[in-house]
Amino acid sequence: MRSFQRGVLDLRPVTLTPGVSRHAEGSAQVEFGHTRVLVTCSVEERVPPHLMGKGTGWVTAEYGMLPRSTHTRSPREAAKGKQSGRTMEIQRLIGRSMRAAVDLAAMGPRTFTLDCDVIQADGGTRTASITGAYVALVLAMRNLNSRGVMSKMPKLTPLAAVSVGVVGGEVRVDLDYEEDSSADVDLNLVATGDGRIVEVQGTAEHKLFDRKMLDSMLDGGLAAIQKLTEAQAKVLG
Amino acid sequence: MRSFQRGVLDLRPVTLTPGVSRHAEGSAQVEFGHTRVLVTCSVEERVPPHLMGKGTGWVTAEYGMLPRSTHTRSPREAAKGKQSGRTMEIQRLIGRSMRAAVDLAAMGPRTFTLDCDVIQADGGTRTASITGAYVALVLAMRNLNSRGVMSKMPKLTPLAAVSVGVVGGEVRVDLDYEEDSSADVDLNLVATGDGRIVEVQGTAEHKLFDRKMLDSMLDGGLAAIQKLTEAQAKVLG
Amino acid sequence: MRSFQRGVLDLRPVTLTPGVSRHAEGSAQVEFGHTRVLVTCSVEERVPPHLMGKGTGWVTAEYGMLPRSTHTRSPREAAKGKQSGRTMEIQRLIGRSMRAAVDLAAMGPRTFTLDCDVIQADGGTRTASITGAYVALVLAMRNLNSRGVMSKMPKLTPLAAVSVGVVGGEVRVDLDYEEDSSADVDLNLVATGDGRIVEVQGTAEHKLFDRKMLDSMLDGGLAAIQKLTEAQAKVLG
Amino acid sequence: MRSFQRGVLDLRPVTLTPGVSRHAEGSAQVEFGHTRVLVTCSVEERVPPHLMGKGTGWVTAEYGMLPRSTHTRSPREAAKGKQSGRTMEIQRLIGRSMRAAVDLAAMGPRTFTLDCDVIQADGGTRTASITGAYVALVLAMRNLNSRGVMSKMPKLTPLAAVSVGVVGGEVRVDLDYEEDSSADVDLNLVATGDGRIVEVQGTAEHKLFDRKMLDSMLDGGLAAIQKLTEAQAKVLG
Amino acid sequence: MRSFQRGVLDLRPVTLTPGVSRHAEGSAQVEFGHTRVLVTCSVEERVPPHLMGKGTGWVTAEYGMLPRSTHTRSPREAAKGKQSGRTMEIQRLIGRSMRAAVDLAAMGPRTFTLDCDVIQADGGTRTASITGAYVALVLAMRNLNSRGVMSKMPKLTPLAAVSVGVVGGEVRVDLDYEEDSSADVDLNLVATGDGRIVEVQGTAEHKLFDRKMLDSMLDGGLAAIQKLTEAQAKVLG
Amino acid sequence: MRSFQRGVLDLRPVTLTPGVSRHAEGSAQVEFGHTRVLVTCSVEERVPPHLMGKGTGWVTAEYGMLPRSTHTRSPREAAKGKQSGRTMEIQRLIGRSMRAAVDLAAMGPRTFTLDCDVIQADGGTRTASITGAYVALVLAMRNLNSRGVMSKMPKLTPLAAVSVGVVGGEVRVDLDYEEDSSADVDLNLVATGDGRIVEVQGTAEHKLFDRKMLDSMLDGGLAAIQKLTEAQAKVLG
Repeated sequence: MRSFQRGVLDLRPVTLTPGVSRHAEGSAQVEFGHTRVLVTCSVEERVPPHLMGKGTGWVTAEYGMLPRSTHTRSPREAAKGKQSGRTMEIQRLIGRSMRAAVDLAAMGPRTFTLDCDVIQADGGTRTASITGAYVALVLAMRNLNSRGVMSKMPKLTPLAAVSVGVVGGEVRVDLDYEEDSSADVDLNLVATGDGRIVEVQGTAEHKLFDRKMLDSMLDGGLAAIQKLTEAQAKVLG
Repeated sequence: MRSFQRGVLDLRPVTLTPGVSRHAEGSAQVEFGHTRVLVTCSVEERVPPHLMGKGTGWVTAEYGMLPRSTHTRSPREAAKGKQSGRTMEIQRLIGRSMRAAVDLAAMGPRTFTLDCDVIQADGGTRTASITGAYVALVLAMRNLNSRGVMSKMPKLTPLAAVSVGVVGGEVRVDLDYEEDSSADVDLNLVATGDGRIVEVQGTAEHKLFDRKMLDSMLDGGLAAIQKLTEAQAKVLG
Repeated sequence: MRSFQRGVLDLRPVTLTPGVSRHAEGSAQVEFGHTRVLVTCSVEERVPPHLMGKGTGWVTAEYGMLPRSTHTRSPREAAKGKQSGRTMEIQRLIGRSMRAAVDLAAMGPRTFTLDCDVIQADGGTRTASITGAYVALVLAMRNLNSRGVMSKMPKLTPLAAVSVGVVGGEVRVDLDYEEDSSADVDLNLVATGDGRIVEVQGTAEHKLFDRKMLDSMLDGGLAAIQKLTEAQAKVLG
Repeated sequence: MRSFQRGVLDLRPVTLTPGVSRHAEGSAQVEFGHTRVLVTCSVEERVPPHLMGKGTGWVTAEYGMLPRSTHTRSPREAAKGKQSGRTMEIQRLIGRSMRAAVDLAAMGPRTFTLDCDVIQADGGTRTASITGAYVALVLAMRNLNSRGVMSKMPKLTPLAAVSVGVVGGEVRVDLDYEEDSSADVDLNLVATGDGRIVEVQGTAEHKLFDRKMLDSMLDGGLAAIQKLTEAQAKVLG
Repeated sequence: MRSFQRGVLDLRPVTLTPGVSRHAEGSAQVEFGHTRVLVTCSVEERVPPHLMGKGTGWVTAEYGMLPRSTHTRSPREAAKGKQSGRTMEIQRLIGRSMRAAVDLAAMGPRTFTLDCDVIQADGGTRTASITGAYVALVLAMRNLNSRGVMSKMPKLTPLAAVSVGVVGGEVRVDLDYEEDSSADVDLNLVATGDGRIVEVQGTAEHKLFDRKMLDSMLDGGLAAIQKLTEAQAKVLG
Repeated sequence: MRSFQRGVLDLRPVTLTPGVSRHAEGSAQVEFGHTRVLVTCSVEERVPPHLMGKGTGWVTAEYGMLPRSTHTRSPREAAKGKQSGRTMEIQRLIGRSMRAAVDLAAMGPRTFTLDCDVIQADGGTRTASITGAYVALVLAMRNLNSRGVMSKMPKLTPLAAVSVGVVGGEVRVDLDYEEDSSADVDLNLVATGDGRIVEVQGTAEHKLFDRKMLDSMLDGGLAAIQKLTEAQAKVLG
């Protein structure tokens, strides 16, 4: 039986709490079951060097896990003096996904930084981060727009993310840590509510997978993402 | 008027929420007004090299701020590749304070690591961290004791911490960020509920201070710490 | 017209040169058009800490670009003192792929390290690296086997990798740097010659993509990989 | 019996040697018994970014120990690639103390850097550093003033520092290494000759301390500091 | 017998292959027997800060070894996060030598960076690097000159480098790895074809050496360098 | 006229002060004119991994400059987080020279670390370091021998070092900073009193040099080194 008494294609209980930070221009706490991520969106009125003078904006992301967000304590990356390859890979994924969600040319020469910090981890921290980051990004843009800093909202493409895996030959959506550890295939999907794909990253952890299996995983993942974008829409009003 | 309509020697509303982490042996969220710190206590069955074979245990602490816990975003220390002097100073203070709270020789050859991560900052993050860390430490010890891992609870010395400052010639307790920025003197005090001092660190930020002013600050600080240890006792049962 | 006068689903000229290093247990130089990667496989008779005493072996990879392998010089990572997120992401991908190519439990408690160093870059350095790394890995295993160090060859799963992109609405295989820079979608595929997938990583660079487009990219990619595994088989005899 | 046949509230023999560097704008060697610190004051005609355009100056400090200044050799921080938390804490303390000694607004937009390098350590290196740094700072200012670079001397507040400890229940001033290692309480005090406090940092190393004990420590420390400021005045003429 | 059946004062077979990189302004692969180094010369239209506004140019070098260029794999410096002392020493030597080869004042305010990457090592990697770097540097300058970027070729001083050692009491030129490991004296010489010295670095590895031995080493080294500069001249036309 | 009214082949006033550290097993302060270096020799009863179990000992060196030992302040390497190439090059030179001075096989499985810290720099810091390090090394060995830790003194080869330069066409010995900055050729020589060479490193800074010039420099350098070894002998008794 899966955690939360759910079926193989069901999400864990999803909670999106907007506006959890007093300081950030936009913020959201996102929970996928016991996985809990705090996302803040910070805005700076400048762009990276390669975009200077082009009029376009930039969206970037950073990701971190609190040392004891995990089952056993992981060393603090700040203390080790470097970010792991996994951290870099995840924050690059979140950044690319968020840049696909917004018309960079229309948001003015400013940078939106999405900090995704994992408070508690139980599988799916990167997909929860992306799902929450979209909310925090939109809230930050509305904040700037309402304060007259950004005169017009740029075009937005609502998107979310979910993990899909093959466990015991069976396609499952939104894996928790225990399922994730034993999955034969692990796939992370970022997509829009209407089924257009932003990112697909599938890895054969213990068994290779064929096209048919990939199709089943995509079916399950896209259906779950539709539900996640509905949850985002409800929160964003 | 001070935030939360309080008097010069009053604390901000204090909330101590125990058991906020599914994974950590002990944990607590502590709020001093808008300052919010998540503390987890992780236990490892080994000690640092200099204590090996001595039978004694160790308590240490790490401290971090989420990048947007502050009014404007601060660069992530993990991305910069090093911890600031301020971070190191604070985590050394927390570690020393917690070692004063427990009989190291009686807790067995194990290490308790207190991770204090600032979710939201509004002044007093180090004093809130210490106050919450004591709770998380005790909960972790009870956890080990109840599971039979640590057969006997070591002797504990309840302690807490508060900031005191001189603002406009007036002694104030538990300063928020705005007060802290304009204080002439900044003092951090760690002590027991019955007035024994663990640490005192006073700094003349803009004006030197005399013995009489120091005495007033200590009076105010120790009274506030008594209230904090009462709040800890209530939470710890 | 594409470089090398090829069709949209054609590979660039592929050259696999085995045994290019006097020192390494296995080695190969791989060229995909003007992209040239030197792969060496080094063997150590020990395993990482988490595998000690389990009898199983390990395969890992490192990736680097010579500073002027690129159109304009990139700073040397050794001089900067850290590897970029892109480097880490690529070497993690190569390592995972190679671990899928071999039965780790049957290769003895030893580590095979695949160093993939890009001598000249013109798009597709990660896919060329994987394709060459498989050759270097097999050669290193044969070397150990022929010298009696590894008594039995472990089971091998021949695999290769190729990039696929959407350029101007058209699916193209094995993109060079210029095509890669203007592609709307960028997909890297690692698979076996008979169409089983090891890794799929697709990214919407400028345009989202639907299931039909993904199917076309997978069709093109898998067909190309079949040709690459044939080239590997020819070289490996 | 204490080292140098002194009473519990006596300083070790103190030597302040001004002008020990041919290159620095100001310099002093300070000895507290066997503790020997070389302090240089370097002046740059620029200020840190956060002060640019404000007309005010800046004073900062760096601290280091030669590897064999200590009883057993400590690893060189430059070779380890980072400064310890202790080093950072001490140099932050010295910097704050020196900024309290001078009117920053009146010294022009320039930076004074105090390098305190411990040649030989026997307890009290931070307090010796502060005591010597004040001398080096004043000498550097006089140097600039006499050369017409700084037209007017800024207002100076003479200050010095001393350690105080509780050893065997007894308050002692200016602890050497052996006393420091066995002290129950360790307090560092920075103050002016007339008893105004700049910094007070007291730590319960093995036993908590009460207000009465703190008062005794402050009495002893302030009396010693008065003697140190007299020694400074003698050297500075 | 020496490798390649050569006499004590003979070079190993030397191969200089110009133009091996599609991207670099100048490049050469150099082989001294089994030692193989790829040198690229990259040009930037700017100079280091200390030369800004002086009209003069700059030549610098970086050096690296592929992890498995050596007999046993060496850790990748980019992964370790720092360059070894040996690497720094060698790249400083190459840079100084190349600056001696060209009139910096006449080459315009631009920087030529010589990247010397060791593909395969068998002794003499620094001398091969210098010998190849001269070729790459000249080719880059001709490239700029022919494209009209640098209107006039600066004055060039052809130079090359060779190692000399004392093995078993006998002076030998151009040592391979095995000879190098057992040499009593190790000397690296950088000079012009007509015998003027740019750098001489001699080290007593196991036996001190007298003036007479030094003279024999210089005789052998300078004769070999004459042959190397002839090989360079042939390649450069 | 040269500093200290000396002839072109004369040394600056040389002072060797033994036993300047209370803690180190051996120590010496060395002055070549205004250049002043503090050398300590620390002994550990263990050897680096590559020498374990071989019975032989090891001698190594580290070098550092106090930030304001130079004319203008140099950034502290510990604060920058890495040692410069120059630092590494110099400490490698000192270490090699000291290993040539002693029979490693006869000194037991222990490590002697020579810390050479430049208190004040005026040219020739590396040659002064080597000259002083020999004294500190011998004193440390005598210390161990007299305490019975090392039962027999290993064979020692007295050696010293000096810089030689060509300034205005004239060979000069022991250059100060000003001469060094304008020298056409810069040569550092490490040798024994009887003229056997340990290290020779000559660099054409602005003009190439021929064999005859090299001979003159060696003549001058070796004569000066003879005087330095006499000074060492006097101090060592």
